[in-house]
Amino acid sequence: MSLGKTFQNGIVILGAGNVATHLSLALKKSNINIRTIYSKTAQSAKSLASKIDTNFTTTIDDIPKDADLYIIAVKDEVIIDIIRKLQIKNGAVVHTAGSVSMNLFQDIYSTYGVLYPLQTFSVSEDVDFSEIPIFIEANDQKLENDLLVLAKKISNSVKVMSSEKRTFLHLAAVFACNFSNHMYSIASEIIDQADVSFDVLKPLIKETTRKAIAGNPLDAQTGPALRNDQYVIQKHIEMLNDNEDYEKIYRFVSDSIFKLKQKKEK
Amino acid sequence: MSLGKTFQNGIVILGAGNVATHLSLALKKSNINIRTIYSKTAQSAKSLASKIDTNFTTTIDDIPKDADLYIIAVKDEVIIDIIRKLQIKNGAVVHTAGSVSMNLFQDIYSTYGVLYPLQTFSVSEDVDFSEIPIFIEANDQKLENDLLVLAKKISNSVKVMSSEKRTFLHLAAVFACNFSNHMYSIASEIIDQADVSFDVLKPLIKETTRKAIAGNPLDAQTGPALRNDQYVIQKHIEMLNDNEDYEKIYRFVSDSIFKLKQKKEK
Repeated sequence: MSLGKTFQNGIVILGAGNVATHLSLALKKSNINIRTIYSKTAQSAKSLASKIDTNFTTTIDDIPKDADLYIIAVKDEVIIDIIRKLQIKNGAVVHTAGSVSMNLFQDIYSTYGVLYPLQTFSVSEDVDFSEIPIFIEANDQKLENDLLVLAKKISNSVKVMSSEKRTFLHLAAVFACNFSNHMYSIASEIIDQADVSFDVLKPLIKETTRKAIAGNPLDAQTGPALRNDQYVIQKHIEMLNDNEDYEKIYRFVSDSIFKLKQKKEK
Repeated sequence: MSLGKTFQNGIVILGAGNVATHLSLALKKSNINIRTIYSKTAQSAKSLASKIDTNFTTTIDDIPKDADLYIIAVKDEVIIDIIRKLQIKNGAVVHTAGSVSMNLFQDIYSTYGVLYPLQTFSVSEDVDFSEIPIFIEANDQKLENDLLVLAKKISNSVKVMSSEKRTFLHLAAVFACNFSNHMYSIASEIIDQADVSFDVLKPLIKETTRKAIAGNPLDAQTGPALRNDQYVIQKHIEMLNDNEDYEKIYRFVSDSIFKLKQKKEK
């Protein structure tokens, strides 16, 4: 698939963090013309620009005005600032945020949209972008088509999705990724206390994930909370009584597991 | 490695649930002599006994008295009942529970211990027992050695661990396995509401687990809570306001993520 005339005047990336980095690397790999990297932080802008062999600027007014697409990949709360300061007459503007509505662009730009890659990125870790689902939205049919063509060059899983649905997707991702990871972190803290290596939990973590993905997580649930095994639950709560936060999480998550089971059985 | 004279008079399995089933299958595969399966539920006892081609009984008094080892693999709260009813003069008695102290056997038996496999089992799913860590404890050096020999026949990862440490291990496992799985379940419920398939979250879940296992979960943490991104956090809390339990979990886990970050930075 060729981009053809789509975005032939190139793309500007605004941001140089995790998402900006991995997206830029994937676009570069697909021979897409990235004109400039913009970031307030010179070090980050320079580092990313050198990785993909392009220019960078730390001055928003110096961004080329004639690119076809401006991708804003910055922290959610900074997006609105960038949108206001970026003085673009032509060209489309998109952001990459899960929880930010496309309507943020309204009344400021004529052609705009969203390109949301659903993944947990770390700057230092390579990712295979082809496996990352990308969700597209645009205020205009031509841009939607163009974004689909672009996204399909870097990912095998591209869908059009409204801002409202994308917000739910992002909320679900926070539970599935950020919160499940925090459960691992708490496990790691607890097991450290007993001078046991976190390594012994790794086969268990792998198997938990495998089961949740192969079937569905509701059917894969096990443990004292599901059995409402108060003997174990009370013992665990006692063990956590020097850490009020973990004790609360233990109580609420255990309650929630048992309630979801009862709801399912109805 | 041969068992030699270890447990040559065979093993009795008490229980026919998830742990009993997978343990029995693994022992059978290593040609270990399982004399009898005991379960109060005839159907379960019969089903497991036929899988490993042995006898079963639903009457605790009919259990052979001359076996070398009795493995109690039942729900935690039932263990003490079984311990009291099982009239064994010779032979060692062990349980398979993470959170139950070995001292439960004290004053009732002379030779006793624990054989705790750390994994999440479902009756219908095959497991590769060789990858499952097994934790051993015994009140007597000979039994400890014998249990080590036995466990090493079915698993590549066998360690001796005290009851106290094992309790911490079990608590850590509840967070790492049961609670992380519940985070997937909540994600699944949320994404259902938006009519989006849970499948789109699977690459994210896989990557989250891969990162936590490859490095450590504290370094792998990402998301709005870590950044203390109140714009997103408040929006998510609003979205959850029809489900008090999920809203609470969102608040407490988000707080805990940020606090752990601050603690780490100190």
